[in-house]
Amino acid sequence: MAPGAVASPAASRPAVQPSGGALGVIAGAGALPRLIAEACRADGRRYVVCAFEGAAPDWIAAHPHAVQPFEKPGALFAALRRAGADRVTFAGGMARPKLRPLAFDITALRLAPAILPLLKKGDDALLGGLAAVLEREGFALVAPHDAARGLLAPAGDMAARRAAPQELADVARAAALVAMIGAEDVGQGAVVSGGLCLGLETLQGTDALIDFVGRTPEALRAGGFAPVLFKGPKPGQDWRVDLPAIGPDTLRRAGEAGFAGVAVRAGGVLVLGREATAAAADAAGLFLHGWAP
Amino acid sequence: MAPGAVASPAASRPAVQPSGGALGVIAGAGALPRLIAEACRADGRRYVVCAFEGAAPDWIAAHPHAVQPFEKPGALFAALRRAGADRVTFAGGMARPKLRPLAFDITALRLAPAILPLLKKGDDALLGGLAAVLEREGFALVAPHDAARGLLAPAGDMAARRAAPQELADVARAAALVAMIGAEDVGQGAVVSGGLCLGLETLQGTDALIDFVGRTPEALRAGGFAPVLFKGPKPGQDWRVDLPAIGPDTLRRAGEAGFAGVAVRAGGVLVLGREATAAAADAAGLFLHGWAP
Repeated sequence: MAPGAVASPAASRPAVQPSGGALGVIAGAGALPRLIAEACRADGRRYVVCAFEGAAPDWIAAHPHAVQPFEKPGALFAALRRAGADRVTFAGGMARPKLRPLAFDITALRLAPAILPLLKKGDDALLGGLAAVLEREGFALVAPHDAARGLLAPAGDMAARRAAPQELADVARAAALVAMIGAEDVGQGAVVSGGLCLGLETLQGTDALIDFVGRTPEALRAGGFAPVLFKGPKPGQDWRVDLPAIGPDTLRRAGEAGFAGVAVRAGGVLVLGREATAAAADAAGLFLHGWAP
Repeated sequence: MAPGAVASPAASRPAVQPSGGALGVIAGAGALPRLIAEACRADGRRYVVCAFEGAAPDWIAAHPHAVQPFEKPGALFAALRRAGADRVTFAGGMARPKLRPLAFDITALRLAPAILPLLKKGDDALLGGLAAVLEREGFALVAPHDAARGLLAPAGDMAARRAAPQELADVARAAALVAMIGAEDVGQGAVVSGGLCLGLETLQGTDALIDFVGRTPEALRAGGFAPVLFKGPKPGQDWRVDLPAIGPDTLRRAGEAGFAGVAVRAGGVLVLGREATAAAADAAGLFLHGWAP
């Protein structure tokens, strides 16, 4: 974690202790698992990237990796042990798989009574179950942002343009709205302009939210104020997966939609490539702010 | 009010007493003021439609009417008195006017210290101030739905298709979300599908919300469930103006966006032309439900 992020909720959690073992990166979609793998390689740490058959990203070919069918967790655990892993992180979006029970290995058959009911529940319940299973197999579950330092947003301005006081007032209003809809598990983002709410994130995600706001008729925009986007985790969210994330594309898209800037909860949101994200903010003339209440 | 709407918050307010005087209808945009004027004419009640210069709808030519500049409330009050009005209702959307202080009449100059600060405040504050001014001038302020019976949504199904139990569960979830965002003065509508929130109304209004949901990628839609829209007033809202409204266009648009139906808070939402709205629901195969918790 960045030393400056003292006000973040993440700062109060114990940091992962360095271990002698390797890190298993269970790779979903998006940039996050690749960034973690590259950080491990740059730091000279041992790691192995694991992916599921039919959903394995191309980039893993450049890293130590193993690919198994989702139905054969025994093969996954064996690959992790062969690589010397004692810690595992789930990184990137993962669609809930369509299971083929006839392909289950013996480990899957043993785990099925515990895991299958969880697949019908919320993400938090599923994650808790997976953590328990992994621990019984001898692996600690760690959060992606504890697996690679520098991924969490620091506090303060990250781009050349600084957020103005009026813009920070809009950020604070948006943060209050995100806390509200987050508590109902609706979404993790809100857009405010001159005190008025122009959009709340729902199932369709942040890109759809930005595009929706971009189509707001000029007459409805508060005079002189451009919209600001805020993203933050939901209250009580299990920080070990599913933290909200932004990246260069978020800033590019917000710029095209006429936004003033993007703010994220300092210590509570992943910034996927901080330099590239700040560069995208600069290219569009936006602020990029790590907000600490 | 419809006799069946026993569970509505509106039912607990005292009904407007019949008066010997005429009703002044201050006409804003949309169908509501026209529906009230037509109801007065059909019932043989005395009325006069008042509109402001530059914002007067065409349809008022077919009714007793008077048009004054916004800056001359003295002329408005005189027109109301000439027509024998003792009650006034504000009906339909009204943009906050750009004032030309040099055109103020003597009444405007007298009222300006009380009214001008209110123009910068929220709708509820503005309305409270206008009500006080009208009362000092001898006019009672009445709610549009008390000026014409049958405008408020009744409880239960209004169209041929009845809302299914699963759809009513989605309606209840959407109603809880509307109460949440209404308390923050964000909007008055929500869309839910199979328990998942697909949209929350913000400043852009209901049409923009419906269109946004209509663009939801198929992969994100809950299997087998079509979205339902719920609209309801915000908690603590002053019921004398600004109740949410739906009409035939709402149903047509929801049908084009693939909705299962539209529900409104029974007794708390205006249905602008109930027969035409139900016919639009039937043409699109949607339910149209007055929801009472």
